[in-house]
Amino acid sequence: MSLETLSTVHAHGGVQTVYRHSSTSTQTPMEFSVFVPPHEAGAKLPVVWYLSGLTCTHDNVTEKGEFRAACAELGLIFIAPDTSPRGEGVADDPDGSYDFGLGAGFYVNATQAPFAEHYHMRDYIETELPVLIAASIPRADMNHQSIMGHSMGGHGALTIGLRNPDQYRAISAFSPVVAPTQVPWGQKALAGYLGDDQSTWAEYDACALIRAGARHPHILVDQGGADQFLDAQLKTHILKDTCDASDQPLTLRMQAGYDHSYYFISSFIANHLAWHAERLRD
Amino acid sequence: MSLETLSTVHAHGGVQTVYRHSSTSTQTPMEFSVFVPPHEAGAKLPVVWYLSGLTCTHDNVTEKGEFRAACAELGLIFIAPDTSPRGEGVADDPDGSYDFGLGAGFYVNATQAPFAEHYHMRDYIETELPVLIAASIPRADMNHQSIMGHSMGGHGALTIGLRNPDQYRAISAFSPVVAPTQVPWGQKALAGYLGDDQSTWAEYDACALIRAGARHPHILVDQGGADQFLDAQLKTHILKDTCDASDQPLTLRMQAGYDHSYYFISSFIANHLAWHAERLRD
Repeated sequence: MSLETLSTVHAHGGVQTVYRHSSTSTQTPMEFSVFVPPHEAGAKLPVVWYLSGLTCTHDNVTEKGEFRAACAELGLIFIAPDTSPRGEGVADDPDGSYDFGLGAGFYVNATQAPFAEHYHMRDYIETELPVLIAASIPRADMNHQSIMGHSMGGHGALTIGLRNPDQYRAISAFSPVVAPTQVPWGQKALAGYLGDDQSTWAEYDACALIRAGARHPHILVDQGGADQFLDAQLKTHILKDTCDASDQPLTLRMQAGYDHSYYFISSFIANHLAWHAERLRD
Repeated sequence: MSLETLSTVHAHGGVQTVYRHSSTSTQTPMEFSVFVPPHEAGAKLPVVWYLSGLTCTHDNVTEKGEFRAACAELGLIFIAPDTSPRGEGVADDPDGSYDFGLGAGFYVNATQAPFAEHYHMRDYIETELPVLIAASIPRADMNHQSIMGHSMGGHGALTIGLRNPDQYRAISAFSPVVAPTQVPWGQKALAGYLGDDQSTWAEYDACALIRAGARHPHILVDQGGADQFLDAQLKTHILKDTCDASDQPLTLRMQAGYDHSYYFISSFIANHLAWHAERLRD
């Protein structure tokens, strides 16, 4: 369980680091980034997890997410994992598509060959990484965690948060895939990783989880009104309807004019982080 | 003098656009980015120019500069030009180096073949682009401009600002090349673009300009203490000594621990923009 430091750089009064380690969940080396804001000696700081979207690594949000100013002001540690196992011997979509295989782990534990060998992103995010962080980042207060994500990572944040409401005090998402069992991205991924028995898909669908009784007290979603994926892949209205029908509290904000890019995320991430910080206070 | 819109995206309540146009200075197509913050109908907004460093295009600061939140709050238009002419027929360093030729125009008007044909970045930034912006961006208040830059672009901001103190009300720089006639990056570029007669170099050296009598009332420089280029290429102390000897006001801040990257720039750009805004008020 040792961390190798790949890079470390001063930013916004804190330190932005990229680590590599050998993952027991994926049986591969994995990389992730951690921002530790300025803090008093010995302080324990709440942890916000950020799950990225299709094709991304930790790099995208680390370079373009504009989260550090807010994390520095609010005293939050920000952790960005990768979106799939990678490297020699890791199966990819034979078609080389962007929405399945490498960079598209969908935060599931795959059961289907050849993906079952390495694609255990659920265990990796939900179990392995929190233990690793607790053991390796002394400033991380693992009793105060929350989770957020973008697109496929919004799906990850919603499903992981809904399955573990005691572990994550708040969930927020930008442009999330809210009902993967009902849209092409999700159907392709869930069939590929889990097989055709759709009863196994439900635990990876935020709306299905809510319909089955999962609840979380704090869910915030921002969705761009000019998002090119809104109608076919995101279908935010399914989450709204499901929450309404289930008395699951939801703050959903449609942001007119915004697209699916990091220009959208970076415009609202400071607001999300302030919202998380309020819910991480005690 | 028409602008072609290459991309436009909502961000931080405003609009981030990339334009292309046919430059009379460089005799090539040129691209640049403009952020127009949220504003009241018909408002005129001050303009801050940002000149980028070696190897960069407008993209680097546009994606990683974290300037939009501050520009939105302060009501500033932010313009990021490219760092050299590009495209078919534009000469490059025969060695393909990163510090001369493409991506390394050094904000000079080249006089030496084959660079004299297209490398007229001084005219482009100082004269052509302001006229184009005045004619094409109705919200731009060209009576309230200021200029900033990074590394080679810090050199550009200092020299262009010092030569035109009435056009640019404030100058700031991150990790600037302060005395190109005295460091390898600058000596290579100035010899290549201007030839061996060093008397022609002085108008492209901030310290030489100050020694020759150029003055500007507002100069702010931030320099990272862990910058890998500080000792060999930046030599910030030459600017400090020159300003001290010349009664040129200078606010120079050494920022311990920071490197030469956009992690440094993004950490302090909001502070720079607030400083510019104060000097752009009336």
